Amino acid sequence: MSAKNLQEVLDQAGNTVDLLRNSQLGSFIYPVVPAEFTNWRREVTSWRESAVLFDQTHHMVNLFVSGPDALQLLSDTGINSMANFPVDSAKQFVPVSPEGGVIGDGVLFRLADEEFVFVGRAPVANWLTFRGGKGYNVDIRWDERSPSRPYGNAVTRDVWRFQIQGPNAWKVIEKVNGGPVEQLRFFRMGYMNVAGEQVRTLRHGMAGAPGLEIWGPYESYGKVRDAILEAGREFGLEPAGARAYSCNTLESGWIPSPLPAVYTSEEMRPYREWLGADSYEAMNALAGSFVSDRIEDYYLNPWELGYGPFVKFDHDFVGRDALEAITPETQRRKVTLAWNAEDVTTLLASPLNQDGPDYQFFDLPNANYGSSNFDSVVDAEGRQVGLSLFTGYSANERTTLSLATVDPGVPIGAEVKVIWGEPDGGTRKSTVQPHEQFAVRAVVSPAPYSAVARESYRPGWRTAATV
Amino acid sequence: MSAKNLQEVLDQAGNTVDLLRNSQLGSFIYPVVPAEFTNWRREVTSWRESAVLFDQTHHMVNLFVSGPDALQLLSDTGINSMANFPVDSAKQFVPVSPEGGVIGDGVLFRLADEEFVFVGRAPVANWLTFRGGKGYNVDIRWDERSPSRPYGNAVTRDVWRFQIQGPNAWKVIEKVNGGPVEQLRFFRMGYMNVAGEQVRTLRHGMAGAPGLEIWGPYESYGKVRDAILEAGREFGLEPAGARAYSCNTLESGWIPSPLPAVYTSEEMRPYREWLGADSYEAMNALAGSFVSDRIEDYYLNPWELGYGPFVKFDHDFVGRDALEAITPETQRRKVTLAWNAEDVTTLLASPLNQDGPDYQFFDLPNANYGSSNFDSVVDAEGRQVGLSLFTGYSANERTTLSLATVDPGVPIGAEVKVIWGEPDGGTRKSTVQPHEQFAVRAVVSPAPYSAVARESYRPGWRTAATV
Repeated sequence: MSAKNLQEVLDQAGNTVDLLRNSQLGSFIYPVVPAEFTNWRREVTSWRESAVLFDQTHHMVNLFVSGPDALQLLSDTGINSMANFPVDSAKQFVPVSPEGGVIGDGVLFRLADEEFVFVGRAPVANWLTFRGGKGYNVDIRWDERSPSRPYGNAVTRDVWRFQIQGPNAWKVIEKVNGGPVEQLRFFRMGYMNVAGEQVRTLRHGMAGAPGLEIWGPYESYGKVRDAILEAGREFGLEPAGARAYSCNTLESGWIPSPLPAVYTSEEMRPYREWLGADSYEAMNALAGSFVSDRIEDYYLNPWELGYGPFVKFDHDFVGRDALEAITPETQRRKVTLAWNAEDVTTLLASPLNQDGPDYQFFDLPNANYGSSNFDSVVDAEGRQVGLSLFTGYSANERTTLSLATVDPGVPIGAEVKVIWGEPDGGTRKSTVQPHEQFAVRAVVSPAPYSAVARESYRPGWRTAATV
Repeated sequence: MSAKNLQEVLDQAGNTVDLLRNSQLGSFIYPVVPAEFTNWRREVTSWRESAVLFDQTHHMVNLFVSGPDALQLLSDTGINSMANFPVDSAKQFVPVSPEGGVIGDGVLFRLADEEFVFVGRAPVANWLTFRGGKGYNVDIRWDERSPSRPYGNAVTRDVWRFQIQGPNAWKVIEKVNGGPVEQLRFFRMGYMNVAGEQVRTLRHGMAGAPGLEIWGPYESYGKVRDAILEAGREFGLEPAGARAYSCNTLESGWIPSPLPAVYTSEEMRPYREWLGADSYEAMNALAGSFVSDRIEDYYLNPWELGYGPFVKFDHDFVGRDALEAITPETQRRKVTLAWNAEDVTTLLASPLNQDGPDYQFFDLPNANYGSSNFDSVVDAEGRQVGLSLFTGYSANERTTLSLATVDPGVPIGAEVKVIWGEPDGGTRKSTVQPHEQFAVRAVVSPAPYSAVARESYRPGWRTAATV
């Protein structure tokens, strides 16, 4: 019988790990935005050398949460303190399950006293929607991410969302605005003018340079984009296509793809019965060399993802007890792995091997082949010392990088190996063909990786400091 | 002053080769169809091992030509004989310039006595449109190719156009049709039923197996696609995404991208004054290592592209005199080059070189970085012996292939070198970044390359035999 909700999907599947490892969903897609405008190497180097226009309009859910109990809902749901959350600021919002596993994360904007918008993948939006229906006086409105394959059909969103980043970003911003724009503190919101319209801004930054995220009604999408590109031409502003965009996080150090830790807690059974049989949680593809029978082994706690500093026990929230029982010092921590060029060459050359071996295809610049990616990180003795969670190529660093979480005893500079490809010839995922595994040498490095970013990135977003 | 037509663009540029080599248009894009449905390796192997659904709806112009003089216009414009062109058949139509250079090619369908449709890139459609306005009693209607970057805007065409190909194609076709479908001769048109509608068919084939191209009104696009995919599931039918589609021609041996030979003939000056300053001819990007000051050196005659057998002097046509002056036996001929795996590995690994050398990026499976690609093919002494015209990777052959035209003295099996990348650090094309050249060893091989196709491909389309 056809499953009616996530719980029934799991019950029918028997094993959640098998279910998700053999998902037919494919890779996470950054839709609608063209693959390339010029070429993805040039687009990637623009955010380091001149300026870039990121188009973040399509790949994330906007969840609008408003009403008298909105703040309470968020406070009860997230690990973050809401004690200091002024209107016109944003936080990187992280909810966990009762077991303490991260459900997801994203940017939470406080637009007004009782008005918020969360921007991120579906799992947090789903969880907030479900919980918002349990006695809170809130209004919740979805602006669904754009279809992965619109195939010529018209796409609409509530809002467009851009970032202007890079060393020349502020020059572009002030030219677009027609005058000076105040450089607010990181993750504070303001206003600017674009093409005759006043739009909202969020102070952002990249590679040590100030930048802005801006958004406005979808009706002005093309007009705003054209105005920014026109103003940015003299400053070397490049629009980033989907391929370039997908790998920016390798440099900034944000792990976009934890597995939502929602599959096991008995307390969350009503949630699983509420989630659809076609929800992200039911469909998402689990990829990589790390395999455990227990789906819990894929859960990551806030410290493992670099969100330890966000955990504040100044409020009650789902999962608080579980997090209080954790000793932060013994947890894995977020690092970047710099992959050995010779070993990556072996992977890149694999399609040319007439008689094998075949390795799992390594696409550039984004090599991930699932919604959530878990590759085993092992030490010289083959002992598992971590998980590699997001893999690709940085044209700025001319290096293959992955974002990972490793045991506390693994120091910066250590050489480890990442097992690339799945065991036993690979799963039935649509992104996988029969292959062998290959152990790639990698050097444990800071996150964010970029020396520039490490030294001058503003505290907060994507770093270990508190928001 | 801003140019009003192609001739003015050329006059202002001074050198046509420089103009086109530094075009900002980018690579030829296969739009609207998603990059991948599963993964491009799997999609490519499906046309060899099971069945594939190609979606050819978006990347070509449909030019509808009808009226009492339609056949005369086509006869006066193409090298092909119209003496045997029954209604419900098709030809690979090739017009040349007065100098004998190929302007382009594509499939010309005879829908009715006075009704034709040409399907191909813009240059032939432009040329037919211009000539149709010179005293012929014809009606010409354009169905422009879809935008390269629709960016969420709705796309419409007059017709959808699919191919069902591969060893299981006929099983899929008959299941979709709900009963036997007559296997007409190659390039003959018939009918079949799809999802309750009767649609037109063109007998096609691939890798030795019969297949069909089908088309119908755009309104039924989704319904027809769904019905074919549903019927095809049990036969391993895979939809091919844009990445997989773009490299099928490497195996079948069709060169999609000759430079239109329209830039020089004094006789064609009125045509150049008619062509827009934003026409394909004005904007197309010329890429590769072959550089000559004379744009004429990029022109290819029918024999060089494998279309010698189409040349029929049973009728008058533009360029006839020039072609009659050519000795076919001394012309270059179409071959496939099988690139050396070790050398291609050097290219694939180039992005990982911290200290260089940088080579022109080699994307998989389609490595072309212009609208028309011209790489020098040299012999052991470095003497130019041909031009490599379309380059990519075949997942079926597990080999990098290019389609080329080489001197008659270069035998099958000869080792040559293809110079990959542009001289002097590269042009200002948007697809190019500063790089060095690299000489890739390659073995001269038949076209089409596939042993299966070579032995059992039907004569006609994409082979050396006469249509």
